[in-house]
Amino acid sequence: MSGSIFGRIFRLTSYGESHGPGLGGVVDGCPPGIPLDESVLQTALDKRRPGSGNIASSPRGEADAVTIYSGLFEGRTTGTPIAFHVASAGQRSADYDALKDLYRPGHADFTFDAKFGFRDHRGGGRSSGRETISRVAGGAIAEAFLATRGISLHACAAALGGITAPLTDVAGALNRDFFAPDEAVVPAWEEAAREAKSRGDTLGGLVRVEALGVPAGLGEPVFDKLDALFAHALMSVGAVKGVEVGSGFKAARMLGSEHNDALLPGGRFASNNAGGVLGGITSGQDILLHAAVKPIPSIAREQKTVDIEGNPATIAVGGRHDICAIPRIVPVLKGMTALVLADMILQQRRMERA
Amino acid sequence: MSGSIFGRIFRLTSYGESHGPGLGGVVDGCPPGIPLDESVLQTALDKRRPGSGNIASSPRGEADAVTIYSGLFEGRTTGTPIAFHVASAGQRSADYDALKDLYRPGHADFTFDAKFGFRDHRGGGRSSGRETISRVAGGAIAEAFLATRGISLHACAAALGGITAPLTDVAGALNRDFFAPDEAVVPAWEEAAREAKSRGDTLGGLVRVEALGVPAGLGEPVFDKLDALFAHALMSVGAVKGVEVGSGFKAARMLGSEHNDALLPGGRFASNNAGGVLGGITSGQDILLHAAVKPIPSIAREQKTVDIEGNPATIAVGGRHDICAIPRIVPVLKGMTALVLADMILQQRRMERA
Amino acid sequence: MSGSIFGRIFRLTSYGESHGPGLGGVVDGCPPGIPLDESVLQTALDKRRPGSGNIASSPRGEADAVTIYSGLFEGRTTGTPIAFHVASAGQRSADYDALKDLYRPGHADFTFDAKFGFRDHRGGGRSSGRETISRVAGGAIAEAFLATRGISLHACAAALGGITAPLTDVAGALNRDFFAPDEAVVPAWEEAAREAKSRGDTLGGLVRVEALGVPAGLGEPVFDKLDALFAHALMSVGAVKGVEVGSGFKAARMLGSEHNDALLPGGRFASNNAGGVLGGITSGQDILLHAAVKPIPSIAREQKTVDIEGNPATIAVGGRHDICAIPRIVPVLKGMTALVLADMILQQRRMERA
Amino acid sequence: MSGSIFGRIFRLTSYGESHGPGLGGVVDGCPPGIPLDESVLQTALDKRRPGSGNIASSPRGEADAVTIYSGLFEGRTTGTPIAFHVASAGQRSADYDALKDLYRPGHADFTFDAKFGFRDHRGGGRSSGRETISRVAGGAIAEAFLATRGISLHACAAALGGITAPLTDVAGALNRDFFAPDEAVVPAWEEAAREAKSRGDTLGGLVRVEALGVPAGLGEPVFDKLDALFAHALMSVGAVKGVEVGSGFKAARMLGSEHNDALLPGGRFASNNAGGVLGGITSGQDILLHAAVKPIPSIAREQKTVDIEGNPATIAVGGRHDICAIPRIVPVLKGMTALVLADMILQQRRMERA
Repeated sequence: MSGSIFGRIFRLTSYGESHGPGLGGVVDGCPPGIPLDESVLQTALDKRRPGSGNIASSPRGEADAVTIYSGLFEGRTTGTPIAFHVASAGQRSADYDALKDLYRPGHADFTFDAKFGFRDHRGGGRSSGRETISRVAGGAIAEAFLATRGISLHACAAALGGITAPLTDVAGALNRDFFAPDEAVVPAWEEAAREAKSRGDTLGGLVRVEALGVPAGLGEPVFDKLDALFAHALMSVGAVKGVEVGSGFKAARMLGSEHNDALLPGGRFASNNAGGVLGGITSGQDILLHAAVKPIPSIAREQKTVDIEGNPATIAVGGRHDICAIPRIVPVLKGMTALVLADMILQQRRMERA
Repeated sequence: MSGSIFGRIFRLTSYGESHGPGLGGVVDGCPPGIPLDESVLQTALDKRRPGSGNIASSPRGEADAVTIYSGLFEGRTTGTPIAFHVASAGQRSADYDALKDLYRPGHADFTFDAKFGFRDHRGGGRSSGRETISRVAGGAIAEAFLATRGISLHACAAALGGITAPLTDVAGALNRDFFAPDEAVVPAWEEAAREAKSRGDTLGGLVRVEALGVPAGLGEPVFDKLDALFAHALMSVGAVKGVEVGSGFKAARMLGSEHNDALLPGGRFASNNAGGVLGGITSGQDILLHAAVKPIPSIAREQKTVDIEGNPATIAVGGRHDICAIPRIVPVLKGMTALVLADMILQQRRMERA
Repeated sequence: MSGSIFGRIFRLTSYGESHGPGLGGVVDGCPPGIPLDESVLQTALDKRRPGSGNIASSPRGEADAVTIYSGLFEGRTTGTPIAFHVASAGQRSADYDALKDLYRPGHADFTFDAKFGFRDHRGGGRSSGRETISRVAGGAIAEAFLATRGISLHACAAALGGITAPLTDVAGALNRDFFAPDEAVVPAWEEAAREAKSRGDTLGGLVRVEALGVPAGLGEPVFDKLDALFAHALMSVGAVKGVEVGSGFKAARMLGSEHNDALLPGGRFASNNAGGVLGGITSGQDILLHAAVKPIPSIAREQKTVDIEGNPATIAVGGRHDICAIPRIVPVLKGMTALVLADMILQQRRMERA
Repeated sequence: MSGSIFGRIFRLTSYGESHGPGLGGVVDGCPPGIPLDESVLQTALDKRRPGSGNIASSPRGEADAVTIYSGLFEGRTTGTPIAFHVASAGQRSADYDALKDLYRPGHADFTFDAKFGFRDHRGGGRSSGRETISRVAGGAIAEAFLATRGISLHACAAALGGITAPLTDVAGALNRDFFAPDEAVVPAWEEAAREAKSRGDTLGGLVRVEALGVPAGLGEPVFDKLDALFAHALMSVGAVKGVEVGSGFKAARMLGSEHNDALLPGGRFASNNAGGVLGGITSGQDILLHAAVKPIPSIAREQKTVDIEGNPATIAVGGRHDICAIPRIVPVLKGMTALVLADMILQQRRMERA
């Protein structure tokens, strides 16, 4: 109940701090017989670390090499827990000593102190973005399972610094700079990121996640509606401030006659305002999700804050930080979506009619 | 795991279909000694049924009288499960027989069939809005507990049919038509509702929920961030398509220097873009949530659909339906927010430092 | 987490106190399409109340008529929660007023006070044996589901007051006095019960539960071994002090060569010391369980105790009480076994190989 | 739900197979500020591996050196997940190749195949006794937490091969051969073990666990009675076939007047048949538990079995195996008891009266 276990049947336990010896996780509940090895996790983790000289990426050259400790035999899952670990290298925690007595605005420093009365000040500890390593690796295991069911996931950056991208090719986004769905938007995003950087500032953005091939009938009525589980999953990622399913906030301004997706023969629909979920249960349409990502709170510009005694202070966070959680957060949100779907596929199997 | 139990420690089990003999729930995990009786639940349920001749309300004159079966002794909770029941009266299921072979667009008819292979076609069955009776009654128990901790909740309709209300008096909203935060917006909302009704159409809207007096330190890192639990809770209510915490989707267009809430002496902040939650943990600021509510899918205008055999058909849903889930959904979302907070208060108590 | 919800997928929520307005429960997670109506639950509840003039039974003439509120449509389960309620009649709580300031030895009076700081002194409140109504009714729903899978359960009293019964006909036990597995033991048990009663004393006993037709492969490795779940289930019933699977405590005195059940062709075994479970997973053999039941603590003889202030006192509990929890506890333990199996059938379905 | 996560609030996730690269676990929910380092876990793991030349111990010289990956800062827990790992060395899986097509009697080979359709035949895989490494290390973390609350645990072998030990000094048992509670029984146990070994056979035994200093009020009514959780915990350990709390199976032959523990002034009791738990809730008396342990199923004597095709075969399991799970299982059962208590201490904290 302390928040580091996700899921009901396909469950991910996560551990690790930003500047501790390593991070990792354990997936319990993955069915046996799924093709899987370390390269599947490594490929997903490499996407989390763009590293391609992209202006938005942090120059912290983390290798993030993953090792699997259990749950595999001869290239397939055995049905037992799959543990994976990423050793941390080059922990420059000295960089953080200057901040140890200050609360960084927009970070969890103040709230962790309020909760635990105890803070590991080295780079955010458990609230650091490095925690998402477990989500991405666990999500890759979920995606491997979903692939055996004909389900695939795509994700992209949909907006950066207020500049929206055309959704030309979401499927190919993970191979572009900024994980953009269209090459044409990249120069504008680069310019926006460069300008923010030059002012010592950071940018917010939007992420889109799609799941294709999802069968109708997944999700539970009432409290565990599938869209509720997606909202939980995406909002649990640091920096996410809003989540939409299908039409999202536009729905608030629509008429019923505009919003309803007419049913067509063959299990098809005339539109997809529902985002693939009706009454919390999948309709067989594509799942469409959006998440709003706040700007990175570590900015070079001077900000007002207080120290841990409550005295006024100013703070300027040094320069090795990203300008935007995008694109780094894109594979994280895809991974979380995969975890929810894997869990729900397994929950549904038991509900076949007697 | 079938989605009718909500929470970890303060847990609500919900039951009941729209046209069955009754609906209700059981709260397990409420601490002993909380002042509570049936009138507390009844008052909350009465807010769910505006009934005040308001154009937006359904004329179905449900009484919704609640009975408590257990968990109370001499006007206080005992620490054992609190069961409550609302008998259903006047189930005019004949009204629905005409629809029994058609899938209503925007409803869960199609997806429930896909999931269960079995549908109670009388008014939506388990996917009906009447299911929210359990949420409101359970939420009232949670609010009674929260009140002993100095926490209060307010909620209002924030927009209807694209018309936004000024947030003049959220605390008083439940005493106004449409649960409006300002009397001045009511005529415009009435006009919008009347016009939609005249066209056989329905409207979407926005709901705002606030929680005041929440101590710093609630919520868990990583997967059970408090904002993730709020997102889960609100998105689990039928018709909700989007959820925001604090700045929400606006965050995607902001700079870090704009979005960061500067810390001030005395545990105060210069702004509240965070919506009261940093790193998933409360900061002591007010909790601020928004939910986007889609237009009611039951519209009088003719729509295209298919029947349960997959043949094309048209459908026009008869006239006893609401024009908008607002205001009826306002107390439901407040109740869900209360359930999350009660659960997290109890989870936090165990985390005091050794 | 307050202990009134049992199971992972097939989940029973229980509520009610001995002298409150009623007791009941909600089963969430029962698959759709199972034949079920109130008579199934009523038949099971009637077995819990022998009523046949048997000396061991309490003369409290509780009717225990059950009503189902939800989850059924046209004689079958719908897949949504099944709520049931038993209204309590003739609550003679005045009988208990004499005891309200005393802690009854062997009862939970002292420990409930320590836990909740709050006790409903009327007949034990939540710790009363009447709480088992929910287990029996919930268990009957589980048995109805198991029947569709070809699984049947039998249970009997196996010993009373140190007198062991031959296991001649366990399947027919619920139709005999004392739920005895052999008619021949009944006179001796009657005599033992009569003698205990004449001395103002009470008796302990043993219960045996069998499950037949259980497929191989149910149960989870490590913490949720099926035998661990059975032990949890049976030990959660008041008065049970010990649980055995298969050979049980005899295993401690056996040699490996005696204890091992040799495998035979055709999925058969030469013996069943395992009790149907190997490594926590069913082998396809019959499930064999035993529970040790302590004597009823309410005795007519005078006992030493203390009052709620801690002062020495004596207590003699009046005469409307059973001499032994047997036979009343037999259907309760059968019900709990059914709940575990139903849950595990549903958990297993998701583990089919990809 | 796949059985590798234990607990509700203080939760242990376990992973690893007998012949994989390593085993370990993650504790989520341990409060911050508890003194802890690797040596605490190592000391507990060393007790699991007697190694003292004792005839009952396996000559497999596993080092079982533990590494902690997260959750500690400056010698104390931080409140975040504590991950620990034990790398496996010297995996002589070749030894097992001879057995890969045979089902070993008394082992989980047959049932794992039935469940997963997939077996890691190398030494039992996930059903191997090496899985208990996670329980012992996780239990040591729980004990470190309990020590801050004044709770201590003791455990001993209480019987071996039918020879019962006097309970002279349970507290000192972990420092004796066989973890015996009295030095005097050791020669008889050695002789029994030697004789069983000479016949190619194995022995069963009894384990006793005690918890001292447990406050009154722990445990939940109904399904999560503390004794039910203990029964679950102990029965989840491989080889355990029976569990008793307090008087256990003797209770079945006792009179109420004998079994009831009279209350005395000062929160004391005249006896402890309850084993420290009344109505599922602690009374403040010592917790007393017994577990029956079956003989090790790997015996040198030839046994009948079948191969994976179902053909009759004979099997004799080679000589590197223990004669008895005792004493090795003693620290495992102590660890499981500690995990339950830690969880319940944290659950109780939230139930203080409002």
